[in-house]
Amino acid sequence: MPHTYQFPRAALTVDIVIFALDEEDLKVMLIQRDIEPFAGRWALPGGFVRVAETLEEAARRALEEETGLENIFLEQLYTFGDVRRDPRERVVTVAYFALVNLVGHQVWATTDARNAAWFATGDLPTLAFDHKHVFATALARLRAKVRYQPIGFELLPRKFALRELQHLYEVVLDRELDKRNFRKKILSMDILVELNEIEKDVAHRAARLYGFDEKKYDRKTRRGFNFEL
Amino acid sequence: MPHTYQFPRAALTVDIVIFALDEEDLKVMLIQRDIEPFAGRWALPGGFVRVAETLEEAARRALEEETGLENIFLEQLYTFGDVRRDPRERVVTVAYFALVNLVGHQVWATTDARNAAWFATGDLPTLAFDHKHVFATALARLRAKVRYQPIGFELLPRKFALRELQHLYEVVLDRELDKRNFRKKILSMDILVELNEIEKDVAHRAARLYGFDEKKYDRKTRRGFNFEL
Repeated sequence: MPHTYQFPRAALTVDIVIFALDEEDLKVMLIQRDIEPFAGRWALPGGFVRVAETLEEAARRALEEETGLENIFLEQLYTFGDVRRDPRERVVTVAYFALVNLVGHQVWATTDARNAAWFATGDLPTLAFDHKHVFATALARLRAKVRYQPIGFELLPRKFALRELQHLYEVVLDRELDKRNFRKKILSMDILVELNEIEKDVAHRAARLYGFDEKKYDRKTRRGFNFEL
Repeated sequence: MPHTYQFPRAALTVDIVIFALDEEDLKVMLIQRDIEPFAGRWALPGGFVRVAETLEEAARRALEEETGLENIFLEQLYTFGDVRRDPRERVVTVAYFALVNLVGHQVWATTDARNAAWFATGDLPTLAFDHKHVFATALARLRAKVRYQPIGFELLPRKFALRELQHLYEVVLDRELDKRNFRKKILSMDILVELNEIEKDVAHRAARLYGFDEKKYDRKTRRGFNFEL
């Protein structure tokens, strides 16, 4: 088949910003590179797009190869095409972002990554390429999204206490929220279901558990809303 | 310089969805192709990305070459990478979207496009490639954006009557809005400035003119809000 475009072509990669929540803060997964350029430097997981795979397939393959993470929710974030973002040659990268619940996800490092680890988003090492900028774009998107879409399904266990949901918003927004005000607002959004269960095996007073009402949650997600905190 | 990735590479293009508002409805600009594939078919303006230009530079160059439009607000929309979206070979396209005010923009066709024209978004011809899908993604983005960001700066003249702003929302959302309710909501958003002027040379009763308060508008745009209509 004749080629469409006879001139030099950029290489195409995918990079994935994976956020997770643990008991302390919002984390992002990084891979320590063991090849040049930037050998030894931390970077977002990613890799080259093969000519016969879609962008999302490439992202899922890279993610599994480098971190072992499978079947997670991926959303396309932005495509970064600065001419000198890779010192080797022109490389355009399609960035994805993902939210995962750390419980139940095993994470390990394989192939060309020496090491994979979760880092607190407030305390990142120097990153390879333009990954600092890619990461900042993902964090800004996440912070914007919590204002007009309910997030949480992906970051929380299926049943959770309101304290845990508040913690999620606090770490994403990076500020403390007033407990009473938060509860009033989140309940008025009408996306939670109060379950007939309380927490088990906790040191503090066991709290009521909640779940998301999937139907209402989906509708709100589609229609958007504003959650002023 | 050694090449990073020694395997076959996708070609990279940009495509631009340009929305404009006229007195009747929301329009989108299309180009009639005069080369294969899809010769004679209408398509979004766009072109190949050169190895030494950024994605946005490529979008601006293609737009100017094909439509004569310059200096307009472009926002990256989404990157489409289905393996068979171009019958020739693997082509990944980074789509942009733009909002323009038809007043003051000359539009003509140049280079490899035989013809450029505005089409009503509700009545599009069959489009080349996956451009129907790209267009639908842009329209969905525009509809979502009006719910959590003030739009209008780009689509309206600098001074406008509330009737014109309501018309904008009606054509974007494709439904009629209650006049009294719309006015109450839009004024409560506190982004408009009432000008000390009324319409001139109009057949109907001259209405008060308004402008956007740029500072408040910018803040609302950054913080987001919910405009339930």
